[in-house]
Amino acid sequence: MSWTRRHLLDIQSLTAEEIVTVLDTARALKEVGRRAIKTFPALRGKTVVNLFVEPSTRTRTSFELAEQRLSADIVNFTAEASSLRKGETLKDTARNLEAMNVDFIVIRHSAAGAPHFLARVLQAHVINAGDGAHEHPTQALLDLFTIRERKGRIEGLNVTIIGDILYSRVARSDIWGLTKLGARVTLCGPSTLVPREFEQLGCRVTYDLKEAIRDADVINLLRIQHERQRRTMFPGVQEYIQFFGINPARMAWTKPDVLIMHPGPINRGVEIDSETADGERSVILEQVTNGMAVRMAVLFLVNGGRGPQEVIAA
Amino acid sequence: MSWTRRHLLDIQSLTAEEIVTVLDTARALKEVGRRAIKTFPALRGKTVVNLFVEPSTRTRTSFELAEQRLSADIVNFTAEASSLRKGETLKDTARNLEAMNVDFIVIRHSAAGAPHFLARVLQAHVINAGDGAHEHPTQALLDLFTIRERKGRIEGLNVTIIGDILYSRVARSDIWGLTKLGARVTLCGPSTLVPREFEQLGCRVTYDLKEAIRDADVINLLRIQHERQRRTMFPGVQEYIQFFGINPARMAWTKPDVLIMHPGPINRGVEIDSETADGERSVILEQVTNGMAVRMAVLFLVNGGRGPQEVIAA
Amino acid sequence: MSWTRRHLLDIQSLTAEEIVTVLDTARALKEVGRRAIKTFPALRGKTVVNLFVEPSTRTRTSFELAEQRLSADIVNFTAEASSLRKGETLKDTARNLEAMNVDFIVIRHSAAGAPHFLARVLQAHVINAGDGAHEHPTQALLDLFTIRERKGRIEGLNVTIIGDILYSRVARSDIWGLTKLGARVTLCGPSTLVPREFEQLGCRVTYDLKEAIRDADVINLLRIQHERQRRTMFPGVQEYIQFFGINPARMAWTKPDVLIMHPGPINRGVEIDSETADGERSVILEQVTNGMAVRMAVLFLVNGGRGPQEVIAA
Repeated sequence: MSWTRRHLLDIQSLTAEEIVTVLDTARALKEVGRRAIKTFPALRGKTVVNLFVEPSTRTRTSFELAEQRLSADIVNFTAEASSLRKGETLKDTARNLEAMNVDFIVIRHSAAGAPHFLARVLQAHVINAGDGAHEHPTQALLDLFTIRERKGRIEGLNVTIIGDILYSRVARSDIWGLTKLGARVTLCGPSTLVPREFEQLGCRVTYDLKEAIRDADVINLLRIQHERQRRTMFPGVQEYIQFFGINPARMAWTKPDVLIMHPGPINRGVEIDSETADGERSVILEQVTNGMAVRMAVLFLVNGGRGPQEVIAA
Repeated sequence: MSWTRRHLLDIQSLTAEEIVTVLDTARALKEVGRRAIKTFPALRGKTVVNLFVEPSTRTRTSFELAEQRLSADIVNFTAEASSLRKGETLKDTARNLEAMNVDFIVIRHSAAGAPHFLARVLQAHVINAGDGAHEHPTQALLDLFTIRERKGRIEGLNVTIIGDILYSRVARSDIWGLTKLGARVTLCGPSTLVPREFEQLGCRVTYDLKEAIRDADVINLLRIQHERQRRTMFPGVQEYIQFFGINPARMAWTKPDVLIMHPGPINRGVEIDSETADGERSVILEQVTNGMAVRMAVLFLVNGGRGPQEVIAA
Repeated sequence: MSWTRRHLLDIQSLTAEEIVTVLDTARALKEVGRRAIKTFPALRGKTVVNLFVEPSTRTRTSFELAEQRLSADIVNFTAEASSLRKGETLKDTARNLEAMNVDFIVIRHSAAGAPHFLARVLQAHVINAGDGAHEHPTQALLDLFTIRERKGRIEGLNVTIIGDILYSRVARSDIWGLTKLGARVTLCGPSTLVPREFEQLGCRVTYDLKEAIRDADVINLLRIQHERQRRTMFPGVQEYIQFFGINPARMAWTKPDVLIMHPGPINRGVEIDSETADGERSVILEQVTNGMAVRMAVLFLVNGGRGPQEVIAA
């Protein structure tokens, strides 16, 4: 099928076929990335603004490198420097950028829904690079890409997500993407951070780590973000490690071919110990590599690219 | 006529003919911007440093996009990161940049005259992106461009500027540009911020809003900058809105084809309400779009470009 | 001889022949820089990350311009914005960058040995842009380049370095480079900052300025960095100026063709007065210009370039 969307705002509104189109396009672009000269000039003459109102060097760098390889012109517009500090509204900032003939806005913002708002008021293509605790769609797409590349499929796999599900945009996007493609999702963590309500999204919820990981084909560990979690809900780091930290002793409970994933940056010694993070089951760095191909694919598709066949033909 | 200046430091020293050359060149470049591939590689192989010692994301972004479309190499050099914080003088910073074979320095600085100083000590082309309360020449040029594009002419128009004239570099540059091209300029605002001395520049000064806007062909609203205005001179936001804020009730006093302009960022609900800012008389976003063409024109001309005929022939 | 190293980590481990290869390659690239279009596209399609965990606008700008002229794709990754602030280790940051297919990492870090550590754990090319008080190899190379260009040789010259030798990475790299190429190095400054132990590196140590500069062919003045020097070791600025500041009266003690060098930024009126800094013996701005050619040479060589003959043939 051909892609027709002008924006990438979330995973929730995508069909399974659309997700597969992104993954197939990313696979074709990953092949392109192996050539000596790594550019594929689909965005030549187009301007991308990376509008990061929340700081994030990794995701911003991944997008920036993806944009460079598509030969886009790039402007980085960070909150620290911006007139948003002077009290200007997001709408005015975005409309001003559009008035400068900007073609794409990649936005990270602390407010859930900010990218959807921009997509309604702008002609430019909008890509959500993380909005509050709502969604982080390119992270979910790179997670799906990595699982499919390693396991050959998504359908029928058992995927366990461990950590602060309640406040995680990564978890939300992953849940939508995994369930749409037919995986069975288990959520695990402290009960204050993994409410039973998530069962309504089609997930299994358990507070028992052994039960959560015993049958898992994939374990996705979320970063424990001390800064964001509400103090009253978080049980304390030592208690978290004791009940939910992944280490070689807990890895002994898992299937031998389980994949260990993490969106980064890792808190070594908290949600995962170094031996496991750097071990042979870990695909954490592959996720980073795949993130570039997935972000190239998203930019290519919202720009009017039809799908992988167009990359392969180029 | 051909352009011969190596710098753009202010509007005060330009002739009417030079201003028109910039406007005509910008018009030709705006046409270029409508092509699918928006670059015009007049600065290929040249290096531009954006030396912003005062923060400004909008103006910096506008310059950066203009530089990209002329195919320049760009380095952003912000005050936060610079050795100016270590106590180095502006002169040493600039001479060091020049020693790195930099061709253009676009400078914003809190000290009036900083660009003129650099132009005296450097071989590089210097462009003033705003110096203290002195001048902001590219803002005036984009204002003139927008008025001429909408009204077909500048000469004989009534242009009213409302707000803090005393501390505004935009007002100063606009006054020079408008009067040189034959417009009649009216200044309006609190008497502490609009001293009678401005009459010596050929302007009419009034403290009565109705009188100021009744015959205006153009109304240019300045941003009320709480941070910069001296407390003792500013009458308070509510009082300002009551006497000088523009809204639909006040718009009823104006000519039906008046243009509403604002250099941005807007304080919605202070100097202008949202309905008027987003209404059909507002050309605020057109100003932003035209800013890119004007800045491309300035870079092109100080680099040795002769004028619009050279753009059209390319 | 041909260059074979994949990294530039320090001067200490280079042979005299390798240093000369860098200088000869930089000379060839400086010639290229005189052409109207200043690019030499040896790094086209390659990605360079400037990972500056300590702020430095000058060195970062010099590297960035050198990278642009080699047509590299560039990402600036500063500590302020980075997840290093979130507690991520340098190793994780660097491995993540590498997973994004980054080809070069130019690193400035407050910890001595940080570049060597990265070179052990990464496949990417690593270039040391200053590590703690350890080394600043490209600064030493540009100092050597400037001396050789002005004096025609290094061997047999008397080079005096004045200032805080103990905490200076510039001094350490200069000492290694100068002694390897056959210069005689004298160190001078307050005894607390110039310990006798430096004699073991083959240097002369003196606390008498007149003796230090009388026979010098080159005087290299280090920046007095109030922020870094331990209070108990530094004698106070006025005392420093009185005993070690360079000014016209002290210049009268020197050989008439002595070169005055400084790595910048200058504290005018402290280690050197303005008349001398801007005088005819000063080559301070030439050092800045030469820094770009030297950094282009280093990037070109670690990328697999063989030496100056390859530049000349291009």
